[in-house]
Amino acid sequence: MTAPVLLLLTHDATGAVVSVDQVDPAKPHVSVADLSATRGDGIFESVGIVGGRAQALEPHLERFARSARMLDLPAPDLDVWRSAILRAADLADEPETELLAKVIFTRGVEGTGVPTGWVHVFASPSYRAAREGGIRVVTLDRGYRSDVADTSPWLLQGAKTLSYAINMAALREAARRGADDVVFVSTDGIVLEGPNSNVIALIDGVYVTTPVELGVLKGTTQGAFFADVEARGAKVEYRSMTLAELQGASAVWLSSSGRQIAAVTELDGVPMAQDPAITPVELAALLAR
Amino acid sequence: MTAPVLLLLTHDATGAVVSVDQVDPAKPHVSVADLSATRGDGIFESVGIVGGRAQALEPHLERFARSARMLDLPAPDLDVWRSAILRAADLADEPETELLAKVIFTRGVEGTGVPTGWVHVFASPSYRAAREGGIRVVTLDRGYRSDVADTSPWLLQGAKTLSYAINMAALREAARRGADDVVFVSTDGIVLEGPNSNVIALIDGVYVTTPVELGVLKGTTQGAFFADVEARGAKVEYRSMTLAELQGASAVWLSSSGRQIAAVTELDGVPMAQDPAITPVELAALLAR
Repeated sequence: MTAPVLLLLTHDATGAVVSVDQVDPAKPHVSVADLSATRGDGIFESVGIVGGRAQALEPHLERFARSARMLDLPAPDLDVWRSAILRAADLADEPETELLAKVIFTRGVEGTGVPTGWVHVFASPSYRAAREGGIRVVTLDRGYRSDVADTSPWLLQGAKTLSYAINMAALREAARRGADDVVFVSTDGIVLEGPNSNVIALIDGVYVTTPVELGVLKGTTQGAFFADVEARGAKVEYRSMTLAELQGASAVWLSSSGRQIAAVTELDGVPMAQDPAITPVELAALLAR
Repeated sequence: MTAPVLLLLTHDATGAVVSVDQVDPAKPHVSVADLSATRGDGIFESVGIVGGRAQALEPHLERFARSARMLDLPAPDLDVWRSAILRAADLADEPETELLAKVIFTRGVEGTGVPTGWVHVFASPSYRAAREGGIRVVTLDRGYRSDVADTSPWLLQGAKTLSYAINMAALREAARRGADDVVFVSTDGIVLEGPNSNVIALIDGVYVTTPVELGVLKGTTQGAFFADVEARGAKVEYRSMTLAELQGASAVWLSSSGRQIAAVTELDGVPMAQDPAITPVELAALLAR
């Protein structure tokens, strides 16, 4: 069993990191007044570490910086965060095990103006069943129009915040409906993303995903998937998809940093078309990154 | 200066409290893997303590239990929580100072199934300027229809969760617009609530607030305000209000546990009608509870 690794990034009031310290993850390190714990007020990334390699590190750091801007947090010093993630991965020293690095940056203890940060590396749960057998998915209304990222930036759509209670509630609702995961749909019928994933659909021979302009996260694993299929000569497209298009796709996957990709076998209780030739090839390519 | 008081409620896997311990609030007590800190996955109440008295304690506990149900958390043992809040207020022993008790219940450290809980009592910030001079408010789109609590319960509207990043972002947006606070409006034009408050409007001689069926929190201070004005012979009503009605009201207040009430002096940059006779009377009544 992999021993978790925890690095704390101590900041000063300017938002600069003054030290990075390895500490015991079994002990508490967060104040009850930290705005992460009281308000979900902060941002995160989950970086997959496979074969000792932190995957899609630059896209993760770029998205981390974008989330910080959207939340009016100090700009994270990406060089320091990159080093911390690589050092934590190195300290975990488990090339045979898939790991996850939770990279967290919060508004800090209320009233101090000093952000809090940490990198926590631990063994991934097993994704074998989902990767090999696929997942049953339900669609759930996200309650927002597909244009809210433009009209109402304070709703923080497209930022990866620590306020994930709705995402967790959506996953519990999926379980109640006998499903494994969720695809959120906008009130105007546009396919958005999963609570922890992006949606990739194969439609008329083209791999399609929802563009970030519609308030979804920029997918790091989806980006790697697209790069790989493009290198094999396939076409990719970022465009809005209706629910009807998703239902009629030749195949659908959810992509995420830990699980990589999982084929959707059932959508709202209806068996989905699948392409059993693609999933293992792409999964292998994603794991080999 | 009031010394903060912190009581930790240690739970077992059944969700029962096994001990309540006073600990040093200056030290960290939350794990980096606690789902409060990583997912905003938990609930809270902010209880005002004035003259040593925990205000609206039963309405707060009732709402706490309702939030727990909405998030599929174990039912909090309200007798234990009530005792802990009263004990923390007692330990703070500051009858001359207004205090706040943050009452927090989280899904706990990921993977353990054991909830985390605490009661943190500390001195309130000063609300004098807002109470005496009123507040400038902007309306912001919440992005949801007014019926989402019915149609889409996984959006957790009406639960007081730890996922408040959007509420905090809305307050920053208000500050950017030169205002002090926010009233959220639904996409169908219905007045909802503030990020930390309820809306009370005096319309045609009747005190009106938004009903919980529209996905707002049940106001504990608003409830006390309504009870007081009813006792003085005024009429109160729970009904949906349009933005136009709010703009045309004889007076508007935002009510919350710490600040109690603050009169709205300006709505979206337009001076609001006010009733300077009511505010000090109701404020005194609320503080005397």
